[in-house]
Amino acid sequence: MFDELHEECGVFGAYRVSSAAALSYYGLHALQHRGQEGCGIAVSDGKNISCQKGKGLISEVFNEESLSKFNGDIAVGHVRYTTAGGNTIENVQPFLSVSHKGTLALVHNGQIVNAKELRCKMEDEGSIFQGTSDSEIVLHLIQRQKGSLLEKIQKTAQMMEGAFAILVMSENSIYAVRDKYGLRPLSYAKVQDGYCISSETCAYDVIAGTDIVDIKPGEIVKFSDGKVEHFSYTNDIKHCLCAMEYIYFSRPDSTLDGINVHLFRKKSGVLLAEYDKDLEADIVIGVPDSSISAASGYAEARRLPYEMGLIKNRYVARTFIQPTQELRDRGVRMKLSAIRSIVENKRIVLIDDSIVRGTTSKRIVRLLKEAGALEVHMRIASPMICSPCFYGVDTSTKEELIASRMNVDELKEYIQADSLKFLNVEDLCKIKGGTGLCTACFDKQYPTELYSYKKIVE
Amino acid sequence: MFDELHEECGVFGAYRVSSAAALSYYGLHALQHRGQEGCGIAVSDGKNISCQKGKGLISEVFNEESLSKFNGDIAVGHVRYTTAGGNTIENVQPFLSVSHKGTLALVHNGQIVNAKELRCKMEDEGSIFQGTSDSEIVLHLIQRQKGSLLEKIQKTAQMMEGAFAILVMSENSIYAVRDKYGLRPLSYAKVQDGYCISSETCAYDVIAGTDIVDIKPGEIVKFSDGKVEHFSYTNDIKHCLCAMEYIYFSRPDSTLDGINVHLFRKKSGVLLAEYDKDLEADIVIGVPDSSISAASGYAEARRLPYEMGLIKNRYVARTFIQPTQELRDRGVRMKLSAIRSIVENKRIVLIDDSIVRGTTSKRIVRLLKEAGALEVHMRIASPMICSPCFYGVDTSTKEELIASRMNVDELKEYIQADSLKFLNVEDLCKIKGGTGLCTACFDKQYPTELYSYKKIVE
Amino acid sequence: MFDELHEECGVFGAYRVSSAAALSYYGLHALQHRGQEGCGIAVSDGKNISCQKGKGLISEVFNEESLSKFNGDIAVGHVRYTTAGGNTIENVQPFLSVSHKGTLALVHNGQIVNAKELRCKMEDEGSIFQGTSDSEIVLHLIQRQKGSLLEKIQKTAQMMEGAFAILVMSENSIYAVRDKYGLRPLSYAKVQDGYCISSETCAYDVIAGTDIVDIKPGEIVKFSDGKVEHFSYTNDIKHCLCAMEYIYFSRPDSTLDGINVHLFRKKSGVLLAEYDKDLEADIVIGVPDSSISAASGYAEARRLPYEMGLIKNRYVARTFIQPTQELRDRGVRMKLSAIRSIVENKRIVLIDDSIVRGTTSKRIVRLLKEAGALEVHMRIASPMICSPCFYGVDTSTKEELIASRMNVDELKEYIQADSLKFLNVEDLCKIKGGTGLCTACFDKQYPTELYSYKKIVE
Amino acid sequence: MFDELHEECGVFGAYRVSSAAALSYYGLHALQHRGQEGCGIAVSDGKNISCQKGKGLISEVFNEESLSKFNGDIAVGHVRYTTAGGNTIENVQPFLSVSHKGTLALVHNGQIVNAKELRCKMEDEGSIFQGTSDSEIVLHLIQRQKGSLLEKIQKTAQMMEGAFAILVMSENSIYAVRDKYGLRPLSYAKVQDGYCISSETCAYDVIAGTDIVDIKPGEIVKFSDGKVEHFSYTNDIKHCLCAMEYIYFSRPDSTLDGINVHLFRKKSGVLLAEYDKDLEADIVIGVPDSSISAASGYAEARRLPYEMGLIKNRYVARTFIQPTQELRDRGVRMKLSAIRSIVENKRIVLIDDSIVRGTTSKRIVRLLKEAGALEVHMRIASPMICSPCFYGVDTSTKEELIASRMNVDELKEYIQADSLKFLNVEDLCKIKGGTGLCTACFDKQYPTELYSYKKIVE
Repeated sequence: MFDELHEECGVFGAYRVSSAAALSYYGLHALQHRGQEGCGIAVSDGKNISCQKGKGLISEVFNEESLSKFNGDIAVGHVRYTTAGGNTIENVQPFLSVSHKGTLALVHNGQIVNAKELRCKMEDEGSIFQGTSDSEIVLHLIQRQKGSLLEKIQKTAQMMEGAFAILVMSENSIYAVRDKYGLRPLSYAKVQDGYCISSETCAYDVIAGTDIVDIKPGEIVKFSDGKVEHFSYTNDIKHCLCAMEYIYFSRPDSTLDGINVHLFRKKSGVLLAEYDKDLEADIVIGVPDSSISAASGYAEARRLPYEMGLIKNRYVARTFIQPTQELRDRGVRMKLSAIRSIVENKRIVLIDDSIVRGTTSKRIVRLLKEAGALEVHMRIASPMICSPCFYGVDTSTKEELIASRMNVDELKEYIQADSLKFLNVEDLCKIKGGTGLCTACFDKQYPTELYSYKKIVE
Repeated sequence: MFDELHEECGVFGAYRVSSAAALSYYGLHALQHRGQEGCGIAVSDGKNISCQKGKGLISEVFNEESLSKFNGDIAVGHVRYTTAGGNTIENVQPFLSVSHKGTLALVHNGQIVNAKELRCKMEDEGSIFQGTSDSEIVLHLIQRQKGSLLEKIQKTAQMMEGAFAILVMSENSIYAVRDKYGLRPLSYAKVQDGYCISSETCAYDVIAGTDIVDIKPGEIVKFSDGKVEHFSYTNDIKHCLCAMEYIYFSRPDSTLDGINVHLFRKKSGVLLAEYDKDLEADIVIGVPDSSISAASGYAEARRLPYEMGLIKNRYVARTFIQPTQELRDRGVRMKLSAIRSIVENKRIVLIDDSIVRGTTSKRIVRLLKEAGALEVHMRIASPMICSPCFYGVDTSTKEELIASRMNVDELKEYIQADSLKFLNVEDLCKIKGGTGLCTACFDKQYPTELYSYKKIVE
Repeated sequence: MFDELHEECGVFGAYRVSSAAALSYYGLHALQHRGQEGCGIAVSDGKNISCQKGKGLISEVFNEESLSKFNGDIAVGHVRYTTAGGNTIENVQPFLSVSHKGTLALVHNGQIVNAKELRCKMEDEGSIFQGTSDSEIVLHLIQRQKGSLLEKIQKTAQMMEGAFAILVMSENSIYAVRDKYGLRPLSYAKVQDGYCISSETCAYDVIAGTDIVDIKPGEIVKFSDGKVEHFSYTNDIKHCLCAMEYIYFSRPDSTLDGINVHLFRKKSGVLLAEYDKDLEADIVIGVPDSSISAASGYAEARRLPYEMGLIKNRYVARTFIQPTQELRDRGVRMKLSAIRSIVENKRIVLIDDSIVRGTTSKRIVRLLKEAGALEVHMRIASPMICSPCFYGVDTSTKEELIASRMNVDELKEYIQADSLKFLNVEDLCKIKGGTGLCTACFDKQYPTELYSYKKIVE
Repeated sequence: MFDELHEECGVFGAYRVSSAAALSYYGLHALQHRGQEGCGIAVSDGKNISCQKGKGLISEVFNEESLSKFNGDIAVGHVRYTTAGGNTIENVQPFLSVSHKGTLALVHNGQIVNAKELRCKMEDEGSIFQGTSDSEIVLHLIQRQKGSLLEKIQKTAQMMEGAFAILVMSENSIYAVRDKYGLRPLSYAKVQDGYCISSETCAYDVIAGTDIVDIKPGEIVKFSDGKVEHFSYTNDIKHCLCAMEYIYFSRPDSTLDGINVHLFRKKSGVLLAEYDKDLEADIVIGVPDSSISAASGYAEARRLPYEMGLIKNRYVARTFIQPTQELRDRGVRMKLSAIRSIVENKRIVLIDDSIVRGTTSKRIVRLLKEAGALEVHMRIASPMICSPCFYGVDTSTKEELIASRMNVDELKEYIQADSLKFLNVEDLCKIKGGTGLCTACFDKQYPTELYSYKKIVE
């Protein structure tokens, strides 16, 4: 799967560290792969919360001048890919609630399945919403509860069904909340004399974080008065981290709920290799960047040479003009190139992490064949995606999913591969072991109620 | 060598193809790795030449609107990295000469060693120069010669000493010129019913070019009246393509003077492996992206597992703030991450393509050790760089080259590797075979006179 | 008063006209003098409301492409100067309320005096506010009322105290609301087969509006089902349009509540002339642009030549560097120049519309004296501003008002004029005749309760 | 004439003043009306010359940061309107010549009539030109002469025919050159302990310049070694400053060759009044901004009230969309508005400074009639423009000039005025007195040879 599926968000927080805004900049930069369409940071100096956000990459929205003005040792930040709600500035996070009782800043990764129902009710009671993002309801819910901020957040977390890794910042505290299924990853680490919270552990590397702790499903972690306290808001826990986090979204150097992403992927390649004991092939090629780990696992298991037969162009440019009919459908060539001297006259096992629409797979197979490949055997390090995700992944309609229209044989014909195999759901779950994975997009086993989304699935 | 050395330019031309400007956009995008600081395209519609250029990436300087206004079926374009002459708009190519006899547009990759001498003489005779780029003298030389445009270019090529891959475009022709040493690569291919000319063959892939022909050292290829004609301007040929083109600059899917870059690099890894018959190690890691080929060659030769122990961040951001002392010197972490689960408790052979200043090498070794590596044995797929290049590579002072200050042992200590070896010059030359390589930066065997640069070397 | 006082807003609406967004662009351009820091337009195509806004001038925020995408025949727009609430994108209007019952878009010119009290109450009841603008409360109030949209707006208007000219747009209607004091102007006109609503009548000129109708204080005008209906929401009417609208803010070609702005100003000059029966002078000069009308009235009344002794630079540039001590305090010279040949050896009556901080007046007097003026008699076409405005004019602190620190004699010394006179409040009111003017900034006769602002005045 | 005719340039220089770049910024800002399409400043610190330029206003191209980096006490700058040569960055001045003998920077206002001939000759001799501007030849000519820099400039000035006000800056001197007809204005003044040179005297006001000296036709003024020296390069002097400088281009507060621009214009109004002894009218209106002076002269002479019946919108916006047929042809309304209360039921004398294409005049007459004017008698404070200018004014084709197609009666009908009169050439010349004016665009009396332009006139 090459640039077809998108995660929508990454969150980052910094508590009692010097230059919290600058640290958040570095942390969010490490999370940039989770969202490139917008980003923002809110900083508290203990008295006031200021916020800056914009469309684009973290390096486009912030510069030295803007960060240096951002004083404070507490911060939360967000990188966003646009799923629910359009790509308008109103939907870029952090969201702020400015009230005479104080200011709250919120960042959210995930998707609230019953957002529509909660929102309608609040609208009827007089609440106003600026944008269309489901994240916007969280602050409204908090504002409407009674009690301490912790109690308000507990009650809010109990009311929401779906995927959420949320940070709520007040002037002098941060609350980190993870949904009871643990659908999205969230952890914290020791940084300087304080703490940082992050969607993925790869962010701690650049800011020298140590002593990493996973926040558990159903947990609220409160950073306040220099201390860390863990609270649970429910006992109804069912741990099932999104399988796609391992398969595609997260960075290979991240470790999610105790399992390193690279190792997970490598293992998926090893399991794929077991399906192919008799397949004769010369080399193994992975689609860069996310399928390299699985490909090396497959190659090692089958004792085949792993080769860099496809290379990715580092520079992004739009394909806005197709000068001739001949060049139509060849946009993928701006992003990927085959190395003829590697692939020519070879029987190739091509590993990709997933197939969504199938069009890119078809183009990559053709790219290899035109560069002289004799055979292209495609192996996908995940099951067929046949059902939409309602927990924060950008596959909201069934129609876009090629697996909802074709079976494996038809798909093999469509992409013109010599053979095609997918990883089984059972094998996928075996890799994680212990507590489970959310595999709803492969087998429709949605862990939550679906509310208004139910009719899409049926 | 991770982001320490820079090539300055890539050139592209299109002759008698539809939408020549759009095609040049795609061609230059494929050459973007050769220069990111400026770019430009000049297009001829047969009567007039128009030109657009600017600072930044090809995708930043051009858009659909600007390209669609650019009518014509002949074009030349350029991507630039700033070496000689500062990064000012005056130095961005193509250069134009607008005269009552017609307009010429010029693009140049390389460096003219006797530019200063030629320029002084012309200034004394009344010529005026806008910028400081050595490329600017070429048009002046052409303008001052007598005869047909071909003759003028022949005489100009004879007067210039140094590295040059040059395209000169008139309203209805293109002349491609390569210096007599062939220091910079240049080739052309059939595209549609016309031709494209490019610094590297990787550009032909995206525009469906076929029948690739290398332009020979000392050759002028004239594209005019729908024909291609080859002329030579000298018999004093001494073929020695810049070794760094294979080692670092060019894309692995390019083939230069008949040899594929990826295969060259893989072979360099194989040769390095021969130095290490007895070294005990667990895994081989290459510094991404340019050292992956060499690393896989080494791994294969030594039957060691090749592992993706370092991953590169796709998103570029500036390291403008170093929030704490602790983070100082850790800028490399924004660009590279080690995967702990791969490197922990491993004896690692780390392959890099070259060492320039040594600082990055030192940081990568530390990165691996902090991620738990037991040993890091560094192998460099090129000889020590000990002398500056005057042919278009950005190493103009000896002082910057760590190899001019340290021997291998001292360097090993400096970068804190457990062992360090470089490829021999002899082995390097063996890979190319046949005609030679320019290895002046390794052994000071400069193929040309050095003129005013002579004192730098001594 | 030269660039010292600022109005904060202008509103514009278009109902059932073709290309409503484009028409709003032209209307807002004519209102640009009322606010230059941000602007926006929301358009309804009968089903959906879309909105675009940004910081800067209308010509900077919108272009042909963005307007052409904006389909619909109903629109509301806003130009903003930053007073209450900072210059952040959150405070730029229109504000949108997106609900399952439909979307509302709101634009507001004025200031709600009891905004703080209303907001606190709503926050306690669970409402969330994004920005700091007092305009944001209006949508919240509407959302919380029961009944039809008209009833909701009526109830909301009854709850708010202060200055407001408000447009509320639903998918297929516009409601125009004016506060019961008529502090800010608002009118509508026939355009094509529909209607346009505008803060000032000058907007109708460019869009060919006819049959202009002033919206009365305490009135709601509903544009729906192709009809116009007038409703009143209160009987407690006390008409007192802001005097500054006539004196400074509005364009001379606008007619507010039946009185043309140019004629008002000219009359103010005539009345000033009556104070000066015996003053010997050679010429009359007005400070461009807003004092020209008053100056010509004075000159005519006293049968003195009106001369263009000061000219204004059309090009705006920042005065960021003061190269020498000598140039300090001379920033005004970038904006205004004296014509020596006119002012040299003359006794001058200099007419300005108002004095706020006094610094500019002092500089203009010096400018004229340095250009050779023998005497400068300053006449101000309004009373002394001695108290802040809470109805939408940018004079929120007493300290900034020079008249709160000096009497007329002291002020005359400070600005180094040979004499200084202000228009009386009585004379000012005489010009308007009939229903009154709000003169609170001159005489502290605030027409409304002041709530939390009360302590500022005391 | 409302925005129909354009001057192409203004030049400014600073010699031995502190913060020369900042001073040039202020000086060029005062000259901004002479050109808005591009600008640049070159500064010398005594050793090196650095240069910054760009498209747009001086306030868009420069900012505090860029100016503060610009060290040196000598500078030359330029504002440009695009006439000869397109609006490309290559044509933006200053032009630099970088040579081993030193750097020269050049700025030029005017047009060289024999540029083409001089350029062809130099091209044949091997010179290369980057752009299409005629100004570019000057540096080439200087470079090719022998002797001291003064001698080179003298010889160059002798070779060029046409209009030129030129500044040439070396590392430590400035040479100011004015053509032998004095077609474009040029003067210098004492500023601090050094000097500034400017196209118009209005620039000295903002930088506290004193002791203004006009540079004479045929003169070179050398600023070097802290001294000012005057040299003449020819005895063939024929003083005839461009009449349009007085009529339209220059700022009213400038004094050109001893005559103040405002007074010149006022006198033109007085002379126009003499043609109208019996015309019955109620009020006099001038088209803002440039016709106000003439209108006030006319009004005074005829003892009619001068009224501000037209006001100009300060904010510029493009008229890119014409929403309805009705609005077509009404673009002028975005820029000018009539005040109905002034013009209604009035017989109006409308003063404009000139007529070029006639379309704007037609629209203004209609604007006034639609606002209720009974009669509109148009009076033009200059003769009919019937022939193109080759000295730097943007009227290069005869076809654009309405006076080349219509006589006064036809033009009156076309613009639908009730009567129309132009100032006579004789009366125009009378205002200046003494040495003459260039009136070639009115009477084809071109002071210079026309070379290749001759055929346009015939």
